[in-house]
Amino acid sequence: MLPLCPYANLVDEMRALFFDSVVLHLLDTYRQPQPDENEALIRVLMAGICGTDMEIMKGYKGFNGVPGHEFVGVVEKVTGGYSNLVGKRVVGEINLGCGVCDYCLRDNEKHCPERATLGISDKDGAFAEYLTLPLKNLWEVPKGVADEQAVFTEPLAAAFEIVEQVHVRPTDKVLVLGDGKLGLLASFVLAQWGTDVTLAGRHEAKLALARQQRIKTKRAEELPKKKAYDVVVEATGSAHGIALALDMVKPRGVIVVKSTVAEGKGIDLTPAVISEVTVVGSRCGPFPPALEALESNRIDVRSLVSAVYPFREALKAFEKASEKEVVKVLLDFRT
Amino acid sequence: MLPLCPYANLVDEMRALFFDSVVLHLLDTYRQPQPDENEALIRVLMAGICGTDMEIMKGYKGFNGVPGHEFVGVVEKVTGGYSNLVGKRVVGEINLGCGVCDYCLRDNEKHCPERATLGISDKDGAFAEYLTLPLKNLWEVPKGVADEQAVFTEPLAAAFEIVEQVHVRPTDKVLVLGDGKLGLLASFVLAQWGTDVTLAGRHEAKLALARQQRIKTKRAEELPKKKAYDVVVEATGSAHGIALALDMVKPRGVIVVKSTVAEGKGIDLTPAVISEVTVVGSRCGPFPPALEALESNRIDVRSLVSAVYPFREALKAFEKASEKEVVKVLLDFRT
Repeated sequence: MLPLCPYANLVDEMRALFFDSVVLHLLDTYRQPQPDENEALIRVLMAGICGTDMEIMKGYKGFNGVPGHEFVGVVEKVTGGYSNLVGKRVVGEINLGCGVCDYCLRDNEKHCPERATLGISDKDGAFAEYLTLPLKNLWEVPKGVADEQAVFTEPLAAAFEIVEQVHVRPTDKVLVLGDGKLGLLASFVLAQWGTDVTLAGRHEAKLALARQQRIKTKRAEELPKKKAYDVVVEATGSAHGIALALDMVKPRGVIVVKSTVAEGKGIDLTPAVISEVTVVGSRCGPFPPALEALESNRIDVRSLVSAVYPFREALKAFEKASEKEVVKVLLDFRT
Repeated sequence: MLPLCPYANLVDEMRALFFDSVVLHLLDTYRQPQPDENEALIRVLMAGICGTDMEIMKGYKGFNGVPGHEFVGVVEKVTGGYSNLVGKRVVGEINLGCGVCDYCLRDNEKHCPERATLGISDKDGAFAEYLTLPLKNLWEVPKGVADEQAVFTEPLAAAFEIVEQVHVRPTDKVLVLGDGKLGLLASFVLAQWGTDVTLAGRHEAKLALARQQRIKTKRAEELPKKKAYDVVVEATGSAHGIALALDMVKPRGVIVVKSTVAEGKGIDLTPAVISEVTVVGSRCGPFPPALEALESNRIDVRSLVSAVYPFREALKAFEKASEKEVVKVLLDFRT
């Protein structure tokens, strides 16, 4: 019997999904990331497949590496202070700024022009047994929140970003376009304070999930081409969503655009000028209100889980995630 | 000699510019408009040619009739109350709502879906000896304001609309794209409270007008493709302006879009989503601050007058207005 190589443990290996710019591979021996100063090594418990991941597979951001940015995990190791985080269950914000530019110094790292983004740009992500993140990106998950809920923190925070950016009045009529994961979460967030929210989409099973939460729904093809909504959230993930939103929003209303699509698509903004419409781009959001909404069960995310796959079946999970009536597919590293 | 027709005075006639959807005609015998209940008949003193008028000649809004919406005039006759307005010098807001819809009832007639707009849509305008407008659209011109200044009230109000809609901070860096009439007026308005304003354009003579007002200028081709401005006002009148604005605005910044162009043109809003940029459409604005700025001479509009033509030379005036280095061309009905 051969002796074990004495250096075998110097570089730890792990299972990971790796996207090579064309094809997704499930690797058994991907190099485990090492935490830099003031970073944590996190063992992933669960991860969620997001619309952005599907866009990455189409070439969005020209990413290659380990995708995945929705996760809940356990801190295994910390480099630098805060060792009390070790063993804690955490979720993490996904933007890593340079730390020295105007945006980073003003607590706005997510807009740092040199930023990396977990699993999206210049940084290996959560579809692997381990990931690293700066300590300041981490939020401890309250005890009462199950892994299956906590893994929704990142997309739920993105839905909360809408009301972080725009004043949605209790008396507003709100339309959410798109019954995908983000559209559903956005409708849940917006309906919290009794605002009149309608979710419009093309998938009966998904619209039914919103109706369970007492949110009105409309089939996209039934929408009257009428400027009837004070706020329209565009979460179709499609390039045509903004044109549709412009048809639906009242003069002086607000369109919140959530879709980032790999294919660029032209729209004509002249109607927005004449009607003095405000169009707000909206991306990642604040974690604390999302965690609070999960802990208090004000927002039910479990109903959005269409399937859970053990990580060894990750490629199957991606196939599942591309099916039409599927909402959220989770990867489970615990089994 | 033939006797005069006894009915000749029943329909008064006037000189007017008439656009038949294709060609502009100067007519000597156009039917004079009659004021409805609570409207005024106004004798036009001066009128200004606007970029929108040039767009109308290209087919914008499919308008046919008398164009013109920038004017100063004298009230000749009033139907219904307020007879004390007769003889007063006035300027007028250009949107005429239906009077009964939600927008009209909430003092927001300019967004009434059934509105007519003076010289732009369903309502004969100011390039004629007489026009009518509802009494509530009229603002008396202060004595110290000359006709040549007062005729700028409407476009200056459109520039004030920017700061009516968007909070521009004294510490913001502002870029105005487009050195046309509206771009110049916008830069004048924005520079009033010491904000760092740069006007970018392609016409040296127009940029020089801004420098006279101590506003920084840049040749459009010198603009660094850098996200360096908190607020960008898009007033190029061109379909490419918004894409340029997206290159220049900081993350989380604001783009105010002023251009309404006859030709629709596609833009890709994905960068605005990622950078969480707000895009605000902006149209007509409030008259009182514009009149105040003219009366106090805080904003010098006289420098923008490139030429004044007697109305009988109106067709020449339109030719002049289409020249590249020309800013504002006025029509004078007094001579």
